[in-house]
Amino acid sequence: MASEVVLLHLLHSPFATRVRIALAEKEVEFESREEDLSNKSPLLLKMNPVNKQIPVLIHKGKPICESLIIVEYIDEVWNHKSPLLPSHPYLRAHARFWGDYIDKKIYPIGRMLWASSDHEVKEASKKELIEIFKVLEGELGDKPYYGGDTFGFVDVALIPYYAFFHTFEMLGNFSFEAEFPKLVSWAKRCMQKTSVSKSLCDQHKVYEVVLELKKKLVVE
Amino acid sequence: MASEVVLLHLLHSPFATRVRIALAEKEVEFESREEDLSNKSPLLLKMNPVNKQIPVLIHKGKPICESLIIVEYIDEVWNHKSPLLPSHPYLRAHARFWGDYIDKKIYPIGRMLWASSDHEVKEASKKELIEIFKVLEGELGDKPYYGGDTFGFVDVALIPYYAFFHTFEMLGNFSFEAEFPKLVSWAKRCMQKTSVSKSLCDQHKVYEVVLELKKKLVVE
Repeated sequence: MASEVVLLHLLHSPFATRVRIALAEKEVEFESREEDLSNKSPLLLKMNPVNKQIPVLIHKGKPICESLIIVEYIDEVWNHKSPLLPSHPYLRAHARFWGDYIDKKIYPIGRMLWASSDHEVKEASKKELIEIFKVLEGELGDKPYYGGDTFGFVDVALIPYYAFFHTFEMLGNFSFEAEFPKLVSWAKRCMQKTSVSKSLCDQHKVYEVVLELKKKLVVE
Repeated sequence: MASEVVLLHLLHSPFATRVRIALAEKEVEFESREEDLSNKSPLLLKMNPVNKQIPVLIHKGKPICESLIIVEYIDEVWNHKSPLLPSHPYLRAHARFWGDYIDKKIYPIGRMLWASSDHEVKEASKKELIEIFKVLEGELGDKPYYGGDTFGFVDVALIPYYAFFHTFEMLGNFSFEAEFPKLVSWAKRCMQKTSVSKSLCDQHKVYEVVLELKKKLVVE
């Protein structure tokens, strides 16, 4: 592990995608180490012994864990370029609030669309997911980015889920374009940034991975 | 709402307690407005329309929500006194990691001790809770505080749960003193600070509140 910056990650993980985008925004080169979650590496277990999860950023040999905490770390360390969090405390708190909302809502609820075999649970999850995206579209409003005129912390937190839009549409039987046109425009705007487009997985590839997962993992 | 700083809170909430401690550490005076969660005030619904939860800090008319985000905000705005987060990005990320761990673990798991009537769920929660406190005692090690030599962000995040130790002991049938002597010494050390002792609820009062809650709220 001779590199100064090493990332333990997984291509289709939305959490890992956030970190790849933040590193790309800051033009930080890193050594990529993809993990096999069914056979976690000794390095991952050593670097994140508490949660044993990806992503882990290893900077000068020291681990930083939890995706949004890593994004803040990257923003603080490589602070000469593309600030992700605003400088005013109130705006910072506002951005952190939405990062937290996205974290607590999208994956835990969205996941039930493929992890549950119970029809009622799936229907309730779909309904709740649509409510969540409605709230998120409301927060975006007519701004080009959640960060206002520039791409920022909340954009980094949310845009990885664009790779899951197709999956949510297929499993939830709804259309993002029809329900959330502003959100789709925003996502396409973000995708024009190389930092985003090179970091996101293809939507169809994510759907394939999820279908594979669905076969293995069914909880009530 | 003429006051510059207003806190919408609840005395026995560990989340609200964090905010009271942080304000006391910074010697910030505030107008206290206790909420009745069975009949939330129009002000709470207006200030936190997304989550509708306490605590909410209203500073110069603007709301800041989510307890650890509020603590960071307080640390950034009143930055002349008692810094809570360290200045080095790595140490900041480390503190945020443990704040996040405490948030994701203690309340959601601990709550099952009174919210579930299922014996197996309660036994599993007790076992998991003991594991969580074991991890937290390990992280403390021989340091006087989680923040090292001074009381800091992780201490603020965790110490409100000292008011729940008696409740966890009674409902989980274990002894903190016997299982986690270092954690108990740390908690007593924190309680010597006026900012902590004046902000925490009495352990027996919390137990009474929880027993009342237990009567009303039983989920499987």
